[in-house]
Amino acid sequence: MHDQRILLAHGNGGRFMRELISDIFARHLANPALDTDADAVHLPGLAGDIMVTTDGFTVQPLEFPGGNLGSLAVHGVVNDLAVAGAEPRYLTLSAIIEEGLEITLLDRLIASFAASARENGAVVAAGDTKVVRKGEGGGLYLSVAGIGLRRATATLGMRHITPDDAVLVSGPIGDHGISVMLAREQFGLTGDLRSDSASVLPLCRAIWDMPGLKFMRDPTRGGLATVCHEIVHATDHGLILQQVAVPVRDTVTAVCEILGYDPYYLACEGRVVAVTSADTAEIVLDRWRTLPGGQDAALIGHITNNASRVILETELGGRRMLGELEDDPLPRIC
Amino acid sequence: MHDQRILLAHGNGGRFMRELISDIFARHLANPALDTDADAVHLPGLAGDIMVTTDGFTVQPLEFPGGNLGSLAVHGVVNDLAVAGAEPRYLTLSAIIEEGLEITLLDRLIASFAASARENGAVVAAGDTKVVRKGEGGGLYLSVAGIGLRRATATLGMRHITPDDAVLVSGPIGDHGISVMLAREQFGLTGDLRSDSASVLPLCRAIWDMPGLKFMRDPTRGGLATVCHEIVHATDHGLILQQVAVPVRDTVTAVCEILGYDPYYLACEGRVVAVTSADTAEIVLDRWRTLPGGQDAALIGHITNNASRVILETELGGRRMLGELEDDPLPRIC
Repeated sequence: MHDQRILLAHGNGGRFMRELISDIFARHLANPALDTDADAVHLPGLAGDIMVTTDGFTVQPLEFPGGNLGSLAVHGVVNDLAVAGAEPRYLTLSAIIEEGLEITLLDRLIASFAASARENGAVVAAGDTKVVRKGEGGGLYLSVAGIGLRRATATLGMRHITPDDAVLVSGPIGDHGISVMLAREQFGLTGDLRSDSASVLPLCRAIWDMPGLKFMRDPTRGGLATVCHEIVHATDHGLILQQVAVPVRDTVTAVCEILGYDPYYLACEGRVVAVTSADTAEIVLDRWRTLPGGQDAALIGHITNNASRVILETELGGRRMLGELEDDPLPRIC
Repeated sequence: MHDQRILLAHGNGGRFMRELISDIFARHLANPALDTDADAVHLPGLAGDIMVTTDGFTVQPLEFPGGNLGSLAVHGVVNDLAVAGAEPRYLTLSAIIEEGLEITLLDRLIASFAASARENGAVVAAGDTKVVRKGEGGGLYLSVAGIGLRRATATLGMRHITPDDAVLVSGPIGDHGISVMLAREQFGLTGDLRSDSASVLPLCRAIWDMPGLKFMRDPTRGGLATVCHEIVHATDHGLILQQVAVPVRDTVTAVCEILGYDPYYLACEGRVVAVTSADTAEIVLDRWRTLPGGQDAALIGHITNNASRVILETELGGRRMLGELEDDPLPRIC
C-alpha cells in the first residue's frame, strides 16, 4: 500500500481505490462468486426457500477481547439467518471507512471477516467501499446482508408461542456488553472476560428438526430482557424468568453491581434464546450442552397468561417487573 | 416522535428504537415481504438467475438539487443491477444514523427511498438501524443490497469487448458531481443545474434483448474516464473518446473551467455507458432517444488495438491521454 493510513483518495473510484480493493478486500474475500469487475453478480445454487437479512455494525473499539468488528459482523448476520432457520450461503459487504484508519487494522478486520464467513459456509458475493472524512465516521462501519436457505422443519415465529411454553438460553448473558465496555477503558476496570461473539449456527442447526421449537432469537442490543419484551409485545402473553436459573458469569455480575447495570439488558453476540413447547425443552438442552458454547444452556423461564408483562422471579421468591429498555449507557455495542 | 432529533436511545434496541422503526422505516417501507418482527425473512418468487449487488451511500449534503440520499441509494443499487442485465426485486437497507439528525429530515429521506423503490418494482425485505454518537457519522449513511433476476439476452461483461466496438453514453455527464458540489456552497457559485440521479432501468431494459450489446456500466465515482479505464484495464484494448461527441452541459463546462475540474472524472448517477458492436450502436441510440433521460444519447468513441490507453481526441484534432484518477477534490459524492 502507498500509505499506512486510509486517504480520501482510497474512496474516489480511481487507482488508490482499485488497489485497496485488490490488496485487502479481494485478497481476503476471494471466491468464485465474487467478481470485483462486475456491478452485480449471479448467485448460483440458490434452490429452495431463500431467506435474507441485513445488519449494520459500528462497535467501538474495533477490536475487543474475544472478537472484532469483522468477525462480529459475520456472526451477527449468520446468527440472524440461523435463528430464523436458515443456512447462510452468500454475504454482501458495504464498508464505510474513515479517513486516517490504519491500513494494517483494516486488513486484520477484513481477514477476520473472511475467516468467520468461511467457518460458516458463506462467501461474499458483492462488496462496496466508501471513504468519509476524518471526524465523519468511527474508523470503520460495516453493513452486511446475508442470503441463505431455509432448513428448519418447523415454521418459526412468535405467533406460534403459547402459554406454558419454555424459555431457554444457550449460555451466560452479558459477556459481550461488559467485555466491550471494559475494552473502552473508561472505568479503570479490566478483567479476563471475553465477548461471547460467535456463530450460533451449530446450536440452531442442532434443533431445526424439532417440531416443538417455536421461536429463536439472538439477544443482541437490549439483551435478554428486550427479547422477552419483543415476545410479550407480539404475543400478548406474559413471560416469567427465574433469576436463579439465568446463567450470568461472576465477573459480569460484579461489574454490573459496581456500575449499576442490569445484566438482563446487556448485549450478547453468541447466544440463542429459544421458546419451545414444555416437553421439548429438555431435549433442546441436552443437544445444546454437547456443543461448544452450549455447555451452560439453561431453562430460564416460561410463557404465562399475564398479558404483556416480563416478570423476574428473584432468588428469594420476590417478583420484579423488567420494563422495556428506554435509556442505555452503552451505544456502539454492535 | 418524542424528540425532534435522533438520540442515542433510538439505537439501543428498546422502546425508542421500536418506535423509530415503526413510525418512519416500517411506515414508508411496508410491504408483504417486510416483517420487522423477524430476524430474517423469506423472499418469494425468485425463480431464475438471481443477481446481487451492494453499495454504500454517504453523499453530503443529504439533500441536493435533483435528489437526496434516499433516492440516490435506490438509484445506485437499481442501476448496478440494471447495467448487469437484471430487474430489481428486493432491497435490504442498513441505516447508520448520527445522533442529532433531525427526525423530519430522516423521514423525508426514507420516504424518498420508499418512493424510488416502488417506482423500480423493488421492495425492502430487511432493514437495520444503528445510531452513532454526534461527531461519528455524517448525518445518515445508507448501505443497500439489491437482489434481482437476470433478464438480458446477451451475457454482459467486459470480456466480450473487441476492437472497433462502439462506446455510447445515454446523456450529459457530470451533472451530479457539479450539482452536489454547488449544493455544498463552498465556492459561492449557484446555478439551476440538477443532479442526474435517476434509475437507468428503463434505458437498460430497452436494450437487454440486443445480441450486439456487450457491456454496460453507470459512470458514478470517477466518472466517464474511470469507466473507460476499467474497460482498458480489464481488456488490454485501448479506447478513444471524441471530445466533440461527449455531451456536457454548458453549466458543467463553465464550472469546470472556473474551478479547474475535468468533466470526464465527474460522477453521474443516472447515466449509462454501453459498449456495443459497431452495427448495434445506432439501434441502441434510436431506442434510448425515445426514452426519458435518453434524449441526448450519443456515440462518443470506440475500442482500439492500442493497449490499455484512454485517449481523448480534442475538437481541434489533438490527442490527450486521460490518466487514471489519483487524487480527487470531491469526496462523499455518492
